[in-house]
Amino acid sequence: MFGPTSVRVRRFKRLLFGPPKRTDQQHLERLSVASGLAVFSADGLSSVAYATEEIMWVLMAAGTAAAAYSLPVGLGIVALVMIVAASYTQTIHAYPSGGGSYIVSKDNLGIKAGLVAGASLLVDYVLTVAVSAAAGVAAITSAVPSLRGQEVVLSLIVIWLIAWVNLRGVRESGAIFAVPTYGFILSILAMIVFGLIRAAAGDWHPAVSPWSAFGIGGGSQAFRQMANGVTLFLLLRAFSSGCTALTGLEAISNGVQAFRAPETRNAVRTMGLERTLLYTMFAGITILAFGFGAVPKEGETVVSQVAREVFGGTGVFYYIVQATTAMILLLAANTAYADFPRLSGFIARDGYLPRRLTNRGDTLVFNSGILLLAGLASALIVLFRGSTHLLIPLYAVGVFAAFTLSQTGMVVHWVKQARQRAESIWRHGWSLFLNGLGALLSGTVLVVIAVTKFTHGAWIVLVLIPLILAYFTYVHRYYARFRESVEGLLHEHLPMDDAKAVKVVMTIGGLSPVIDHSLRVARRISKDITAVYVAAEPDLGEKYQKKWDLRRHGGVPLVVLPSPYRDVVGPLQTYLGQVHREHPETLINLLIPAVVTSEPFDDYLHNGTVDQMLRELRYAEGVVITVIPFFVNMSSARNCRITHFRFVLLQGKRTGSNVGSQKRSRTPDLQAGV
Amino acid sequence: MFGPTSVRVRRFKRLLFGPPKRTDQQHLERLSVASGLAVFSADGLSSVAYATEEIMWVLMAAGTAAAAYSLPVGLGIVALVMIVAASYTQTIHAYPSGGGSYIVSKDNLGIKAGLVAGASLLVDYVLTVAVSAAAGVAAITSAVPSLRGQEVVLSLIVIWLIAWVNLRGVRESGAIFAVPTYGFILSILAMIVFGLIRAAAGDWHPAVSPWSAFGIGGGSQAFRQMANGVTLFLLLRAFSSGCTALTGLEAISNGVQAFRAPETRNAVRTMGLERTLLYTMFAGITILAFGFGAVPKEGETVVSQVAREVFGGTGVFYYIVQATTAMILLLAANTAYADFPRLSGFIARDGYLPRRLTNRGDTLVFNSGILLLAGLASALIVLFRGSTHLLIPLYAVGVFAAFTLSQTGMVVHWVKQARQRAESIWRHGWSLFLNGLGALLSGTVLVVIAVTKFTHGAWIVLVLIPLILAYFTYVHRYYARFRESVEGLLHEHLPMDDAKAVKVVMTIGGLSPVIDHSLRVARRISKDITAVYVAAEPDLGEKYQKKWDLRRHGGVPLVVLPSPYRDVVGPLQTYLGQVHREHPETLINLLIPAVVTSEPFDDYLHNGTVDQMLRELRYAEGVVITVIPFFVNMSSARNCRITHFRFVLLQGKRTGSNVGSQKRSRTPDLQAGV
Repeated sequence: MFGPTSVRVRRFKRLLFGPPKRTDQQHLERLSVASGLAVFSADGLSSVAYATEEIMWVLMAAGTAAAAYSLPVGLGIVALVMIVAASYTQTIHAYPSGGGSYIVSKDNLGIKAGLVAGASLLVDYVLTVAVSAAAGVAAITSAVPSLRGQEVVLSLIVIWLIAWVNLRGVRESGAIFAVPTYGFILSILAMIVFGLIRAAAGDWHPAVSPWSAFGIGGGSQAFRQMANGVTLFLLLRAFSSGCTALTGLEAISNGVQAFRAPETRNAVRTMGLERTLLYTMFAGITILAFGFGAVPKEGETVVSQVAREVFGGTGVFYYIVQATTAMILLLAANTAYADFPRLSGFIARDGYLPRRLTNRGDTLVFNSGILLLAGLASALIVLFRGSTHLLIPLYAVGVFAAFTLSQTGMVVHWVKQARQRAESIWRHGWSLFLNGLGALLSGTVLVVIAVTKFTHGAWIVLVLIPLILAYFTYVHRYYARFRESVEGLLHEHLPMDDAKAVKVVMTIGGLSPVIDHSLRVARRISKDITAVYVAAEPDLGEKYQKKWDLRRHGGVPLVVLPSPYRDVVGPLQTYLGQVHREHPETLINLLIPAVVTSEPFDDYLHNGTVDQMLRELRYAEGVVITVIPFFVNMSSARNCRITHFRFVLLQGKRTGSNVGSQKRSRTPDLQAGV
Repeated sequence: MFGPTSVRVRRFKRLLFGPPKRTDQQHLERLSVASGLAVFSADGLSSVAYATEEIMWVLMAAGTAAAAYSLPVGLGIVALVMIVAASYTQTIHAYPSGGGSYIVSKDNLGIKAGLVAGASLLVDYVLTVAVSAAAGVAAITSAVPSLRGQEVVLSLIVIWLIAWVNLRGVRESGAIFAVPTYGFILSILAMIVFGLIRAAAGDWHPAVSPWSAFGIGGGSQAFRQMANGVTLFLLLRAFSSGCTALTGLEAISNGVQAFRAPETRNAVRTMGLERTLLYTMFAGITILAFGFGAVPKEGETVVSQVAREVFGGTGVFYYIVQATTAMILLLAANTAYADFPRLSGFIARDGYLPRRLTNRGDTLVFNSGILLLAGLASALIVLFRGSTHLLIPLYAVGVFAAFTLSQTGMVVHWVKQARQRAESIWRHGWSLFLNGLGALLSGTVLVVIAVTKFTHGAWIVLVLIPLILAYFTYVHRYYARFRESVEGLLHEHLPMDDAKAVKVVMTIGGLSPVIDHSLRVARRISKDITAVYVAAEPDLGEKYQKKWDLRRHGGVPLVVLPSPYRDVVGPLQTYLGQVHREHPETLINLLIPAVVTSEPFDDYLHNGTVDQMLRELRYAEGVVITVIPFFVNMSSARNCRITHFRFVLLQGKRTGSNVGSQKRSRTPDLQAGV
C-alpha cells in the first residue's frame, strides 16, 4: 500500500530470497594473497577463455593458414599484459585506500577525465555481464552439443540467475570464489602442461610451421601466398580483439583495503601472481590452439577443441576444463553486479548522478541497479544473438579508455607528489616510466581498437559514452541551479507561511471501523473536519449520504462528490481547489486512511485509490497530505495464503532487513495504532 | 518525488507520448457495419495469414505429397467457422449489451466457469500479441529477404512499438482500422480471384491430384504410398493447427454496444460479413497453396509464396499483399492491448483480482497492464525464437476453452430464459441447436488440441490456467476474510483512539528555506515540535548542531541521530520507537519536507531519502506521516534541460492528463505553498 509497486515486489522477493546482507558485513573477512586472488582475479583470468579465439576469428578472414599469425599477435598481448599490470602495481602503491579508474582520473586529471572513465566503466560492466554470460554458455554448449542453438535463451537464464543471486545478497567471500577460480587455473595449467608434453612427443599437427608467420623456415614463401590476405590492418584488428585478455586487470587496485595487513604488500603480491597466471595461461592456450590446429567456429569454443585434442576426446578431464571455465565466467559476470552500484554511488556522491543512488541502505535503489544491469545485458544478448565475438568489439573500447585515463592520472600523480614534497621528480622515475609506458600503450591500443573495430560495433560505445556524459552534466548543472534557486529564498516570505488555521479534509469510502478510527485521529489534528466521499456510481452517493446521516459520526459533515467517469482523484482535486479558493488563508490537511496488512505480499490487494491519490494530489495548492494507517493482522487469512503460496514460505520465517527488525509489529489478533 | 519510480517514468513518458485519451471518448463514435467490420474483425481475419501454413507444417511430417490433405482438413475448418460464427450470432441476440466469454460463462454456468474462461482469455491475449507480431514480421521478412534471421529482434521491436502506441493512448477508431483491414481483405480476395483464373487457364502445378486425398482418381493408389505417414492422429493435429483460423471470432459479440442503433442488427450483419470473408479467404488461400505447390519453410510464408506464384514474381501486387498482411497482423496484436486491461477490470470488479485494477482513471494501473502484456509476449518471442508455428500450439487451447464455456453458457441461457418466461423450450429451439452444436464442436476441438498438441507446448497453457485460477481464488478468499476481520471491529476500542496530544517530529537535512517553511507549517499543526537530523557522517552531526543553535529557529530543539552505516531510516525508526514508548498516549506526527519541482522528469533527482522514509516508516507504531511539499519552479534550470533534452520536448507543450490540468501550478519564479 501507498508505497511504490516495486517495493511490494521487492518485499515479496525478500520472502523468496531471504534477508539481504548488511553493507558493513562486507569486509569483515580480510583477504590473504590466496583468497584475494580468488576474489579479484576471476574477472581478469576468465578472459583467457575467449581471448585466443577472438584473435583467430579475425585472422580467419585471410584463410586458415593465417592462424599462424596468432602467435606473434599473442606475443604482443603478453607484452601488453606485463606492462599494464606493472603500471597498475604502481597505482596500488600510490592508492593504498583503493584507486579505481574513476577516482585516480578525477584526482589527478580533473573531474571531466574522471567522468569519462566513469562512463566507460559503467558501459563496461554491462558488457562484462553480457560477454561473460555468452562465453560461459559457449563453454557449456561446447561440451553438451544437444544444447546448441539455445545460446540466447541459456545466456538470458544465466544473466537473470546471477541477478537473482545478487538480489538475494551475496558476499564477496574467498571461500565461495576459491573453487571456480582455482579450479579454472589448475585445469587450464594441467591442460597446457599435458598439451606441451604431447607436443614434445611429436603429437601435434599445426596447419603450417609455427615459424612461418615470423618469416623463418623453408616453407615461408609458400605460406606467404597461402595467407596473403593478412594486412597490417587485419593484424591490428586481431590484436584489438585479443586485448580483451586484459579486462578485469584493474580489479585488485580497486580493492586494496580488502586485503589483510600489510594491505599494499599483499595486494602487490596478488597482482604479481595474477599477471603471471594471466600471460602463462593466455600464451599456453594460444600455442596449443595453433599446435593442435583448432579453428574458431560456431557451436564449439577453441578452448573446448584444444581440451578435446589434448585429453584425446571428451573424457573426465575435458569436462573438468569446460565446467571450471563456465564457472569462472559466471563468477566474472557476478563481479559486475557488485561494481555497477558501487561506482554509481561514487559518481552520485560527486553530484553527477541522482543523489538517491548514494543511499547504500536503500535496497530499492540497489536492486533497481541490479535489474537495470541485467536488463541492459539481456538486451545486448538478444541484439547480438548471444555471440561472444559480436559483443567483443564493443567491450574493449571502454576498458582501454579507463586504462588510459587511469594510467595518465598516475603520471600526473607522481609529478604532483614530487612537487608537493619538493623532491626530485626522478625519485619516482621508475613509477613514472611504468605508468607513462602503460598510458602510452593503452592509449595507442584504444585508438587501434576504435579505428579497426569502429564498423564492427565500437561506434555504439563511442556514441553511448558522450550520451552518458551529457546526462552527468545535466544532473550536475541541475543541482547547482536548484541550490542557487532555493538559497536565494532564505529570507523570503512564502505562501502558506502564515496560514491562520488548519482544515481537515478526510477521504472516506472504506469500511466503518476504518472510518471511525480515522475520525478519532482527525479530531486530534483539528476541530474543523469535513468527510468527502467520491461516488463512482451515481446512486451510490445518495445511499452513502443516508448511511452517514444515520450513524452521525459526531457531527462531521459529509460531502458527496459525483464522478461520472468512475475516476476518484479528479473530483477530489476539483473539490480541494475550490476549498483552497474559498479559504486561501487556511492550511488544508488531507487525511487519507490506508490499510496496512501484516504481510507485504497482500499490500497490493489494498489501497489502489490511496496510492493514486498520493501520486496525483501532491501538487494540489495549499494542501498537505497525512496518511492514517489502519493496521490489520489477519491470522485467518494467513492460513489461506499458506495453502496457495506454501512454496513462497519454504524460505522459513521472515527476518527483518538491516533497516530494523521491529519494522512491523504483529500482535495476535488485530491491532490498530496511529 | 515521494511517488513510485514508475510514476516518474510514466510522467516522463507523457512528455514523450502526449496526453492520454479520456476513457469516455472511447465510444463517442458509433460504428456502422462497414466501420464495425474494420474495428472488430482485424483479429479474426488476420489469422488466415497463418492458418493454412500451420496445417501444412503438420502434414509435411508425412512427406510433401501429404500436402493434399490440407484440402479436406481445410474443409473441416470452414465448417467449424460456419457453426461457431452462427453460435456467436445467437450470443449477440441474447446479450445486446455485449457478451464476452467471461460474462456469458459467469452468468449462466456460475463464477467458476467464468473464471476458467477469464483465465483462458488472459493467456490468449498474451499469445495474440506474440503470434500476431511473429506472423506480421514473417510477412515482412518474406518480402524483404535481407531481414531474414532478424525475426526475434524485429518481433520485439514490433511488440514494444505497439506498446508505445498504447501507452500514448489509442482510439479504436474506424478510420484508423479501415485502411489495413479493407486493404488486407481486398488484396487477398484479388489474389484468390486472380489465382483461380490462372488455375482455370491450366496454369497451376499441384504436386499431386487434388482428389487424391479424398481417394478419388487414378493415381490414388500411388499417392497413398507417397503419403503413407498420414495417420488419423496427424490429420487431427493438422486440424488443431488450422483451428487458429477461428481466433478473434468472438470480438463482435463483446462489443455490440459500440454499434450504431439498431445495435443488435448491425452487429449480426457485421458478424455475417466477417464469417463469409473468413471462410472465403481461408479456403481460397488453402486451395491456391495446394494448387501452386507452396511448401511451408523457414524464411518465407506460404501466403508470400502463393502471392509470388499468382502475380508472377515480386511485383507491386505482391508487395501490396505482404504489406497489408503485415499491417492487419499488427492491428490484431494491438486489439489485445485494449482487451487485456478491460477483462482484468471485469474480473477485479468481481473481487478475483486486486481491486486497484478496476480504477479506470488510474493510468499507472493501465500502463502496468500494457507493460506486463508486452513483457510476457516478448518472453514468449525469445523462448520460441519468434516462430509462429512453435507458438500456435499454445494459442488454440485458450481460445477453444473460452469458446466451449461461452457456448455452453448460451445453451443454459436459453433453457433458463424459457423457464423464467414459462415458455416452451422449443421457442428457442434453433438458438439452442446452434449454441449446443457450437459448444459440442468447440469442446471436441479443445480435447483434440489438448491431446494432439500436448507435447508441442499445449501443456504449458494447461499448467498456466490452473495457476491463474489459484491466484483468483486466493485474492477472493483474502478479500472475504479481510472484510470479516475488519467488520468484527465495528465497536472495538483501538489503540491511539484516545491519544491525548499530538507531538510533531520533523526530519530536516535539506536547505535552510525548506526548513524555515516547513517549521512554519509545523507550528500550525502542534506546539510540541522536535527537529531530527540523521548524521550520515560522524562529524557532520556536531557541525549541524552548531549551525542550528546559531539560527535558533524559534526554540525548536534539534536531536542529532548518529548513523554509523550511512543509513538514514534505521536511526530514525529507532528514535520514533523510543518516543512512542516514552509517550504512549501521544500521537506522533512525523513531518517530512519534500521538494516538488515544476517538471516531473527532475523529480527523480530529489527526495531519495523521502521516498525511502515513506516506504519504511509506515509501519512505525503510533505514527502518522505528513508530507510538507516545497514547490520549486526553476526557470533557469529549464534552459539547461532544453539544451540536453530538446528531443524530449519535440512533443510540444505538455498538457494535463484527464485528471485535471490544474495539477501543477507554475508561477514565474519560485513558489512555495502548502
